[in-house]
Amino acid sequence: MAKPKVCLAYSGGLDTSVILKWLIEQGYDVVAFMADVGQNEDFGAAEKKALAIGAVKFVVEDLKREFVEELCFRAIQCNAIFEDQYLLGTSLARPVIARAQMRVAQQNECIAVSHGCTGKGNDQVRFELAFYAIQPTIKVIAPWRLPEFFERFAGRNDLLDYSAKVGIPVTSTKAKPWSMDENLAHCSYEAGILEDPNITPPADMWKLTDSPLDAPNTPEEFTLSFEKGIPSKLVTSSGQTVTGSLDIFTTLNAVGRKHGIGRVDIVENRFIGIKSRGCYDSPAMTILRAAHVDLEGLVLDREVRSLRDQFVTFTWSKLLYNGLYFSPEREFIEKSVVASQDTVNGTVRLCAYKGAVSVLGRFSETEKLYSAEESSMDTLTDFSPVDTTGFIGISKIRLAKYGQAKADAGESLSRA
Amino acid sequence: MAKPKVCLAYSGGLDTSVILKWLIEQGYDVVAFMADVGQNEDFGAAEKKALAIGAVKFVVEDLKREFVEELCFRAIQCNAIFEDQYLLGTSLARPVIARAQMRVAQQNECIAVSHGCTGKGNDQVRFELAFYAIQPTIKVIAPWRLPEFFERFAGRNDLLDYSAKVGIPVTSTKAKPWSMDENLAHCSYEAGILEDPNITPPADMWKLTDSPLDAPNTPEEFTLSFEKGIPSKLVTSSGQTVTGSLDIFTTLNAVGRKHGIGRVDIVENRFIGIKSRGCYDSPAMTILRAAHVDLEGLVLDREVRSLRDQFVTFTWSKLLYNGLYFSPEREFIEKSVVASQDTVNGTVRLCAYKGAVSVLGRFSETEKLYSAEESSMDTLTDFSPVDTTGFIGISKIRLAKYGQAKADAGESLSRA
Amino acid sequence: MAKPKVCLAYSGGLDTSVILKWLIEQGYDVVAFMADVGQNEDFGAAEKKALAIGAVKFVVEDLKREFVEELCFRAIQCNAIFEDQYLLGTSLARPVIARAQMRVAQQNECIAVSHGCTGKGNDQVRFELAFYAIQPTIKVIAPWRLPEFFERFAGRNDLLDYSAKVGIPVTSTKAKPWSMDENLAHCSYEAGILEDPNITPPADMWKLTDSPLDAPNTPEEFTLSFEKGIPSKLVTSSGQTVTGSLDIFTTLNAVGRKHGIGRVDIVENRFIGIKSRGCYDSPAMTILRAAHVDLEGLVLDREVRSLRDQFVTFTWSKLLYNGLYFSPEREFIEKSVVASQDTVNGTVRLCAYKGAVSVLGRFSETEKLYSAEESSMDTLTDFSPVDTTGFIGISKIRLAKYGQAKADAGESLSRA
Amino acid sequence: MAKPKVCLAYSGGLDTSVILKWLIEQGYDVVAFMADVGQNEDFGAAEKKALAIGAVKFVVEDLKREFVEELCFRAIQCNAIFEDQYLLGTSLARPVIARAQMRVAQQNECIAVSHGCTGKGNDQVRFELAFYAIQPTIKVIAPWRLPEFFERFAGRNDLLDYSAKVGIPVTSTKAKPWSMDENLAHCSYEAGILEDPNITPPADMWKLTDSPLDAPNTPEEFTLSFEKGIPSKLVTSSGQTVTGSLDIFTTLNAVGRKHGIGRVDIVENRFIGIKSRGCYDSPAMTILRAAHVDLEGLVLDREVRSLRDQFVTFTWSKLLYNGLYFSPEREFIEKSVVASQDTVNGTVRLCAYKGAVSVLGRFSETEKLYSAEESSMDTLTDFSPVDTTGFIGISKIRLAKYGQAKADAGESLSRA
Repeated sequence: MAKPKVCLAYSGGLDTSVILKWLIEQGYDVVAFMADVGQNEDFGAAEKKALAIGAVKFVVEDLKREFVEELCFRAIQCNAIFEDQYLLGTSLARPVIARAQMRVAQQNECIAVSHGCTGKGNDQVRFELAFYAIQPTIKVIAPWRLPEFFERFAGRNDLLDYSAKVGIPVTSTKAKPWSMDENLAHCSYEAGILEDPNITPPADMWKLTDSPLDAPNTPEEFTLSFEKGIPSKLVTSSGQTVTGSLDIFTTLNAVGRKHGIGRVDIVENRFIGIKSRGCYDSPAMTILRAAHVDLEGLVLDREVRSLRDQFVTFTWSKLLYNGLYFSPEREFIEKSVVASQDTVNGTVRLCAYKGAVSVLGRFSETEKLYSAEESSMDTLTDFSPVDTTGFIGISKIRLAKYGQAKADAGESLSRA
Repeated sequence: MAKPKVCLAYSGGLDTSVILKWLIEQGYDVVAFMADVGQNEDFGAAEKKALAIGAVKFVVEDLKREFVEELCFRAIQCNAIFEDQYLLGTSLARPVIARAQMRVAQQNECIAVSHGCTGKGNDQVRFELAFYAIQPTIKVIAPWRLPEFFERFAGRNDLLDYSAKVGIPVTSTKAKPWSMDENLAHCSYEAGILEDPNITPPADMWKLTDSPLDAPNTPEEFTLSFEKGIPSKLVTSSGQTVTGSLDIFTTLNAVGRKHGIGRVDIVENRFIGIKSRGCYDSPAMTILRAAHVDLEGLVLDREVRSLRDQFVTFTWSKLLYNGLYFSPEREFIEKSVVASQDTVNGTVRLCAYKGAVSVLGRFSETEKLYSAEESSMDTLTDFSPVDTTGFIGISKIRLAKYGQAKADAGESLSRA
Repeated sequence: MAKPKVCLAYSGGLDTSVILKWLIEQGYDVVAFMADVGQNEDFGAAEKKALAIGAVKFVVEDLKREFVEELCFRAIQCNAIFEDQYLLGTSLARPVIARAQMRVAQQNECIAVSHGCTGKGNDQVRFELAFYAIQPTIKVIAPWRLPEFFERFAGRNDLLDYSAKVGIPVTSTKAKPWSMDENLAHCSYEAGILEDPNITPPADMWKLTDSPLDAPNTPEEFTLSFEKGIPSKLVTSSGQTVTGSLDIFTTLNAVGRKHGIGRVDIVENRFIGIKSRGCYDSPAMTILRAAHVDLEGLVLDREVRSLRDQFVTFTWSKLLYNGLYFSPEREFIEKSVVASQDTVNGTVRLCAYKGAVSVLGRFSETEKLYSAEESSMDTLTDFSPVDTTGFIGISKIRLAKYGQAKADAGESLSRA
Repeated sequence: MAKPKVCLAYSGGLDTSVILKWLIEQGYDVVAFMADVGQNEDFGAAEKKALAIGAVKFVVEDLKREFVEELCFRAIQCNAIFEDQYLLGTSLARPVIARAQMRVAQQNECIAVSHGCTGKGNDQVRFELAFYAIQPTIKVIAPWRLPEFFERFAGRNDLLDYSAKVGIPVTSTKAKPWSMDENLAHCSYEAGILEDPNITPPADMWKLTDSPLDAPNTPEEFTLSFEKGIPSKLVTSSGQTVTGSLDIFTTLNAVGRKHGIGRVDIVENRFIGIKSRGCYDSPAMTILRAAHVDLEGLVLDREVRSLRDQFVTFTWSKLLYNGLYFSPEREFIEKSVVASQDTVNGTVRLCAYKGAVSVLGRFSETEKLYSAEESSMDTLTDFSPVDTTGFIGISKIRLAKYGQAKADAGESLSRA
């Protein structure tokens, strides 16, 4: 009789290599799955290793385009940000990875999926909620939450000993004193020495950005255009025109890397209720968000922006962070993201310099909400200043009542 | 019989000098009022000029401390920001200025107050809503909205001609091609050449910050401490300890100026519904906000932060921008600002460099929400990974229903 | 030369008859416009009167279907309600009336539109914001806000004297001591004796509902079905099946009238900042909303409902009340209304009795979110109670921290 | 050596009697705890039974006053309601019960607490989150989630067999085909035959309300007064004045019972993600909420009400439903509840009749936000109608832009 098959999210590293072997020990045939979301990775070496350990199959899927177009650009459209600072790089990648893993699982008739996420993190939640939404009947094997696994492999040495015993090749490179996760949108750094939130990250930690201290002394100017809130064209400092979602994204990553743009270092609140310190460098996302926020100032109606900011941006960001991409509420709220972007058409001129991106100017050839003449203090075309008197006269009715009540109560509002 | 008295917000400039004279022509005795909110100003010269034009009295009030403590620090406590970018420098100053002007008006038995704000801007609204709330019966004279005034003084030349005719001294300095408003929190720049949102502001425009391009090549490190969300101590790069609200604020302004921190250039949505381009440099506010946001990550409960971000920060910022400081809703919402800050105690280590401020680390001696051990992926003290399985098992119930309904409808969630 | 034309919203009553004549006096040709939104009205008599006074044309438009389908049913889809109680009957009618009036104005080449709304109410705002959005260049003549009009006609007697003088026929029926506005959705009552909020409305005031005291002693049962949140079928107590939006609506109005359903009496907050007392009877709307709210319990996802309730229902209702139907934010938010209703398919069994409607049961043949077996306390199919332990174990992490901090501070949470 | 002690929430019924015995079997000394939250209960019989089964101690605590004052009246102050309909009766009782149980546990040196809640419901979550917040180190024994218990007692017959075997007295009264939970605020009904959401609850199910069909044919009028949003005085139809929180509450329960007020029947969304059908009758709470909502119309500022409705009412209700009373976010948001109620002083005249309560009128002797003269359409004191023209003129600026953009795009807003 055929063994049951499991599709394992394989990274090529120590943990998932041990898990791969352990799953085989448990009686499974293992399909090793890797997602290419733009990380710097030797997929060939990983394939070789997985098959050497005993995987019945190795599958790598190139998800870069769907990652950028379906997730990263949606995030840009709604100015997504979590707890004021985090651009959600990891959170954005999880849905496309989980979806691809489930596709591979289904194509290979796996009865289960597995991953190497730890039991305290966000990623286990993000992956598994996605798995269950995509296929409610799927079996999920999360070894780091199974006592028979986590008690057996209580520390790194246990993993190394086991690897030696079962013949898993271990790279000689010393492990970094923190853990990382990289994709096109960012690289994340957490755990290890970073667990003390007062330790400044070492200079050589950041993978996707050069240090602002080493950035060029000359600012670099470029322009970005958007159509319905989606980045559509980049003109670089050398005058090159870049179109195509992936090309724009990777070119901006290069610009951001060079100028050290997009580093953040925060203490965040994981979905499971634990505070955690995370560092992230997100060059392209940081530039794109700055440009998009700026353009909306020019072309988006005030009240649409206000509603979008308070409800849609906030909610979409939180849902993504908490792993709720495959949910009715994300589907619901995302329709509002798209609905808000009809008028977000225009171009922003930007400048990268020493760790920051700034806006030099912006214009739109199609949208007319901004009118220099109208906003000018010097002209009164189509505007009666007397109207403002009425506007204030009406707006004050409620406030005068409030002031009168305060005065009646002896609490003068004129006191400092 | 005594003439009726009006208290005029006087700036010493061309517009309010003409207004002063014009009010006298209309039969008023004029009390010229100036607020010292930290702007760079020759109050002595302004007094001399006001009295020369015919003011019956000149009053200047030092509002710097109440401005910083009641408004700027409250803004920092709630991470106030308008439309993602503007730290509200002007909006924060208006309530203290209006309140002081009303005090002066009341002390001098004025039956009216007057100002030189234009008819299309936010400031007229902010001032007048404050006036009416503080004293519902006050008469407000807004010459730039009175046809008999704005038709007579249709351009700058009319003001100059009138000044020459009635003997108002005019400074020979050429007017800048934009208008400015300065206080401790920021300097704002708008109108004139800035009305084209695609014109990059000239390098010599910025008053409170040096250019990031001219900033020191060496980063400057310092630490900021907060008590209940209020800045309480600054230790500078030279090891000097600064306490006292005003001293902390001005020292940070100096640090920020030197490193070019806090410039923004945006198109914003005025209360009266017109889009307008504004540039602002806010060195101390930018540094304080970055530090406060960071510290909250360490010490504020996730859900309190979430509610505060979505409702309190958003609402307080919008109210202040729209001139609704003296309103029941601002009083109501501000109690939540204060209520959220009990645990915001700790210290942030910061670094200023070439236009940006970044966080190097943070700690709190009193708050324990963050626990390195608890967040560590390597330890399981007080944590059962099996719980997470249950957490996911319950959290997925709704999502599996959603996925099943999608599958039943033939819309597989596994498709890209 | 042809006179300029104005399109007047004509009601046949005293005020708009005087306005009609006055507009003619001002040199206009007047097109008298009446909207049929289901009010009890003798349109023929009104036409005769308008033409007798001097209107160059009389136009009545039947807007009942678009009123019910585009406005009332949209309100039902989002459970619209203002300040907890008001079902927005008047607010819902204004957009269709204003739109039709503008159509008539445009078809008749009018350069202006006019109406008889008073200067303190909501309706002037609702009409005029609609006019300006539909045609930004339109001229609006609001006589009750023009000093030359309101000073001339300072009281009802002035209107009667003028009518007598210029030959406007006045009906001999005595005016009610309150004002009313009726349409298919409701009748509103305000002003006059109702201005004392402690006066109970007289029994003979209510036009669309019989008194609950006079309602039948026998409950009347019926069922309502919805498709995507839109009422699609009514089966009456006599077993008659009613389909068609207008038929369902008017049948429910008849049921509600008979049983005295849908009366409210509130003090509300007008857009211009004045509190006002209003009474409304809305039989069909009350029944429809109760049924729709109930059905959503059965078929709508929890989080979609929660987001919809807090943001969409609240915002849409407020926008409609304030006259912002023709606005980018209403268009934006309404897409969310529709997006939330895909699964709102099913049937509700209802009972009308003595002033109230109650729910007897509900079911859906297509939606499966509710599962009797799953919710049953007695079965454990597809459910592991141990998961709940994990769910609580994770959910408590944050709370235990909170409790510990309280305990450390000596504030035991166990004290009452 | 002394046995470890556990404090069991004891009800006197079959389940918790079996649990009591089972805990003793597991080696515990059991302190049986009962909370008196106003339910109809023979506490003496329960004590006798608990001790007979083997409890080392029986404790009953009268929590009625703290339940009404700390929870029910707070709910009234914020118009608390869950999913449009549920007045939270059970949710409100859980915090006071859990707190008292923990007090008893601590006073009796128990190392654990236990309860008889099932594994799919809300109450287990509400109790346990409270337990853990109050004492993070407490051990919780939830037998219905322990496989060794729920597998042993898989059905009611197992419980009965065990009871017979170990000598637990079983009342001969036949179990109702649904489960109930009663307190002063309401009685809840769920499970059993109610699990089919299309089954109308039987007439004899409702415990706290007579059927509206049997209610008196004569309406009963009474008045309720509030101080800072707290019910302070009731004048009954017979002219009796009732003060004191508990007396007001129980008197209103009697009025509501007689007239059949406060029944709801809904499908709701449990915290754990399962939909569930619940019926509730809440006479006093329904009357109090109706009166409080009405009074706020008269005395609460529009914007304070709007913010309170959207954020505070919504959030507080959801937190209570989900068992998050002892949480930082509830403490945070509740400060806003209190802050909103300063002006909620006044009296509401009410009428109970055939299942509904309606408002006859309202007044306040201290609050002046409502002004009959000001709201009157007939007077122009302190009001310039011309101001409204300006108000509309400014408010339309944004909308005219929107309309123009639509027109430019060929999408006329005047089309139906």
